Amino acid sequence: MRVRLLVEYDGTEFRGWQIQPGERTVQGEMESALESMCNRRVSVTGSGRTDAGVHAAGQVAHIDIYPKEMERISKGFSSLLPDDMAILSVSEVPDDFHSRFSAVSRLYRYRVTRASHPLVSRYSFTSDIPLDTGRMQRAAVLSVGSADWKAMAKEGSGNSDWLVDVIGTGVSEDRLGWTLFIHANRFLRGLVRIWAGTLLRIGSGAEPPELVTELLKSGDRSRAGTSLPARGLTLLKVRYR
Amino acid sequence: MRVRLLVEYDGTEFRGWQIQPGERTVQGEMESALESMCNRRVSVTGSGRTDAGVHAAGQVAHIDIYPKEMERISKGFSSLLPDDMAILSVSEVPDDFHSRFSAVSRLYRYRVTRASHPLVSRYSFTSDIPLDTGRMQRAAVLSVGSADWKAMAKEGSGNSDWLVDVIGTGVSEDRLGWTLFIHANRFLRGLVRIWAGTLLRIGSGAEPPELVTELLKSGDRSRAGTSLPARGLTLLKVRYR
Repeated sequence: MRVRLLVEYDGTEFRGWQIQPGERTVQGEMESALESMCNRRVSVTGSGRTDAGVHAAGQVAHIDIYPKEMERISKGFSSLLPDDMAILSVSEVPDDFHSRFSAVSRLYRYRVTRASHPLVSRYSFTSDIPLDTGRMQRAAVLSVGSADWKAMAKEGSGNSDWLVDVIGTGVSEDRLGWTLFIHANRFLRGLVRIWAGTLLRIGSGAEPPELVTELLKSGDRSRAGTSLPARGLTLLKVRYR
Repeated sequence: MRVRLLVEYDGTEFRGWQIQPGERTVQGEMESALESMCNRRVSVTGSGRTDAGVHAAGQVAHIDIYPKEMERISKGFSSLLPDDMAILSVSEVPDDFHSRFSAVSRLYRYRVTRASHPLVSRYSFTSDIPLDTGRMQRAAVLSVGSADWKAMAKEGSGNSDWLVDVIGTGVSEDRLGWTLFIHANRFLRGLVRIWAGTLLRIGSGAEPPELVTELLKSGDRSRAGTSLPARGLTLLKVRYR
């Protein structure tokens, strides 16, 4: 039977999602716990990889298990995992459910603070440059739609298809700083962190909001902002039909 | 000249506020940084001690420095501190300002989640017992007023005066769990964590909300809840006239 898992993790101490020999990864910790519950190897398939240091409040994965293993996994999975990760829910799904291919969209958040705040700094990046919220909001609006995101993807990621359908974006401001949201059908490697870096350059006044439109038209990486640190990035939600 | 400091820290890796030989403490880290900026010992006086593992979003302290040292401290203090603490503001105050004796009240928060959530678990306690928010809210209302808090203070803390004026309390519920607030003129050792433990016992149905009134009348420690872990506790604000 196929089982869907909802996973939360603090990415600080992980070398990302994907299993790698000799490295502490989210998938690796999950497969170790499953092996000790099922006494065999059980592969975990995630909705997508998150890079080293990136957090998730709602990552989704699936596994294939025998019905008799369900109870043990439902009750005991989280207790076999380290404190910086947890299984929020375990549910049976149809056999044709696939955490990656059935997903219709993903929602990410990038958090920026004005000053260093130790109580949130594991989950945010600090910008000491003053930022104009209105300019970043205009740039966020111009990011919505179907476009070629080559200019804001990491180079050498082996992609040939750069088409991304951005469903929605948002920039909010609060007492500590700013939160950027981006919701799209798919994400290219490095996209959110480069998009966030581009919005910060626009917010600082160094570039106009229309830079986003130009980048999406030209595919020219040289004018995009630099990639911001992983610590500020959280995968909030993966949506399914 | 006297200078007031607003301090934020993630208490996880500290043995509390108060300086102790051979231990990593908030006051100790601040005095080390000041010594390297001023080339002499500068004592830091806090509004009150926080225990090992307790966090602060708005701890207040004062120091006495020479006017010529002000600029260096204003600009460079946070950069000399470890990442899990920061100085949020540095401001000159009248010579009769005292971080502890001039304070009129303190506000603390205790955070409880229903399940383990790695993205907030450094700052919260997880209760797997279902809790009734209404019962906890009634108990919080009964906590307000001037009373003898001996029953909810840590034993052997050398106190003889247990009178606390609780100005306000609150219990809110959200998607992840509950947040308890308590605002009082002063706090006895262990008070917030034992009060929170008592509210959780009441929320679980094991005791009626009126237990709070009985504890404040009788001073009988044996019926109070157990002290909850430090990780859930944050000093939010210290108020001055």
